[in-house]
Amino acid sequence: MAKIRIGIYGYGNIGKGVELAVVNSSDMELVGIFSRRENISTLTKKTISSTKIKEYKDKIDVLILCGGSATDLPLQGPELLKDFNTLDSFDTHAKIPEYFSQMDKIGKTSNTLGLISVGWDPGILSIARVLFQSILPNGKDYTFWGKGVSQGHSDAIRRIKGVVDARQYTVPLDDALNSVRKGETKDFSAREKHLRECFVVLEKDTEAERKRVDKEIRTMPNYFSDYDVIIHFISLEELKEKHNTLPHAGFVIRSGNTYSKNSHVLELNVKLDSNPEFTSSIMVAYARALYRMHQEGVTGALSVLDIPLSKLSSFSSEELRSKML
Amino acid sequence: MAKIRIGIYGYGNIGKGVELAVVNSSDMELVGIFSRRENISTLTKKTISSTKIKEYKDKIDVLILCGGSATDLPLQGPELLKDFNTLDSFDTHAKIPEYFSQMDKIGKTSNTLGLISVGWDPGILSIARVLFQSILPNGKDYTFWGKGVSQGHSDAIRRIKGVVDARQYTVPLDDALNSVRKGETKDFSAREKHLRECFVVLEKDTEAERKRVDKEIRTMPNYFSDYDVIIHFISLEELKEKHNTLPHAGFVIRSGNTYSKNSHVLELNVKLDSNPEFTSSIMVAYARALYRMHQEGVTGALSVLDIPLSKLSSFSSEELRSKML
Repeated sequence: MAKIRIGIYGYGNIGKGVELAVVNSSDMELVGIFSRRENISTLTKKTISSTKIKEYKDKIDVLILCGGSATDLPLQGPELLKDFNTLDSFDTHAKIPEYFSQMDKIGKTSNTLGLISVGWDPGILSIARVLFQSILPNGKDYTFWGKGVSQGHSDAIRRIKGVVDARQYTVPLDDALNSVRKGETKDFSAREKHLRECFVVLEKDTEAERKRVDKEIRTMPNYFSDYDVIIHFISLEELKEKHNTLPHAGFVIRSGNTYSKNSHVLELNVKLDSNPEFTSSIMVAYARALYRMHQEGVTGALSVLDIPLSKLSSFSSEELRSKML
Repeated sequence: MAKIRIGIYGYGNIGKGVELAVVNSSDMELVGIFSRRENISTLTKKTISSTKIKEYKDKIDVLILCGGSATDLPLQGPELLKDFNTLDSFDTHAKIPEYFSQMDKIGKTSNTLGLISVGWDPGILSIARVLFQSILPNGKDYTFWGKGVSQGHSDAIRRIKGVVDARQYTVPLDDALNSVRKGETKDFSAREKHLRECFVVLEKDTEAERKRVDKEIRTMPNYFSDYDVIIHFISLEELKEKHNTLPHAGFVIRSGNTYSKNSHVLELNVKLDSNPEFTSSIMVAYARALYRMHQEGVTGALSVLDIPLSKLSSFSSEELRSKML
């Protein structure tokens, strides 16, 4: 059987994880890694300039876009979908409908298929939310994140004047988590569900600077003002030594009853040593599904909610039914 | 929009649960409940004799088969699929491939669609097994059940001479569960994963009878001989008072690494007050998916692994993308 020909577009943390997963998938072949910077050594290749991507139009079955949601994907997705089947991890929740609709039009015109918002959230936690809501409509669900590094919140602290570097951990609160697991359906404030713990390196570590930055963090709207916040000022050495990995975790928990006194609790949870490597692994499994669905003639845009699980697997449907059903 | 017209075939615990879920689904209409016993009052209807089912050929969009896997479904599935789209909870794992292939042929000939093995295991735990294996191929997964009533094991005890009634609880063992949750990938014996706790009512509760039945249970091959077993002899009154519900639970846990030092743990768990009502709720959500896929022209047989999650939901794809992705 022909191998699925994969291209990687963008070589940051996600691109590196995708490379690792693809070269370990026996049904896939890594055609090329495209980056702004040419001729950089990767795990198995040298990068190709992203300006040369069009030359690979008929040589790649699925192009995995590894850029960020803020500025890369809104431009790259629509442009690259004209020539390639694309898969991305677009995760700006509020803009998903607009991005989907734009990609759907381009894919239908170009006879290509774009699979958007693949990862763990949005992604497999979304699958749990839809599955759980569908089978237990008379209930309520909760999503918790962490303990894990939030890149967005870390970046927000780094933008404060006088901050050299920072790492923010989102921590789910046990009281809320345990209440939900017991089947209780309380309304929680943001503060009751998650705590935000920050490790901050200052340019000048003085009492006055600590006081100023502490206040700027705690009062920052959207990011911190609605939460209990713990702030540690540490040295750059300590940050590099103790906070150099990107662990994360997520929980979707739904409880409800079956229109009777009987109630039920469903939970999906993921606990990750490396957020980018795990996200990449999900993307590579979905690249297999994308390839198969495009082969079947599907074009336009899809999300993970539109994909049967059997399409993700390197096993045949017969094997899945006999071994895993 | 026209409502999905549902028929229920068989009115035991599952049939009752399906009725409860269907009458609470605003996009569904319950056309009839078919049973061996005619004119029995149900929650909302009176049963119709199952001999009259053929008269309803064009009046039902999805016929939900609520019989058992041992003797009912192997006969009823193939027969009813000739005239109806059917959905069942066939759960004899070893016979699924054969049953699927038989149903697939009939559905393709009859232009109908049969969705088999819908429930929580096989069913949503199967979805977790396939999803987890696909995104974390370099790992290992474990399924645990309980604490919950196993009908099969309870029945096995009831077949022992001198036993009036019995209830068997399957109990997952914390040591194994915690080891797996920590990401360890040990090989466990059956005895290390689950304990079997039995509550038994004897015809004649004498010391000699207790000794004999105790031994017969503990030495029963397949069912009990490979497990640690706890046996309580109790009165029929106590059984009826304290063991009259059908709770259950299940866990799929997979751990593995992303071809690096980074490892990850994924878990789906369900905790149920009522096994039949929860199974029924899953069947009713999948009835919606079955209806939609048949409308799109799919015929033959499918399992839950072949169904995109968005098809289960009463929300539109647009709503799902904007609210739940």
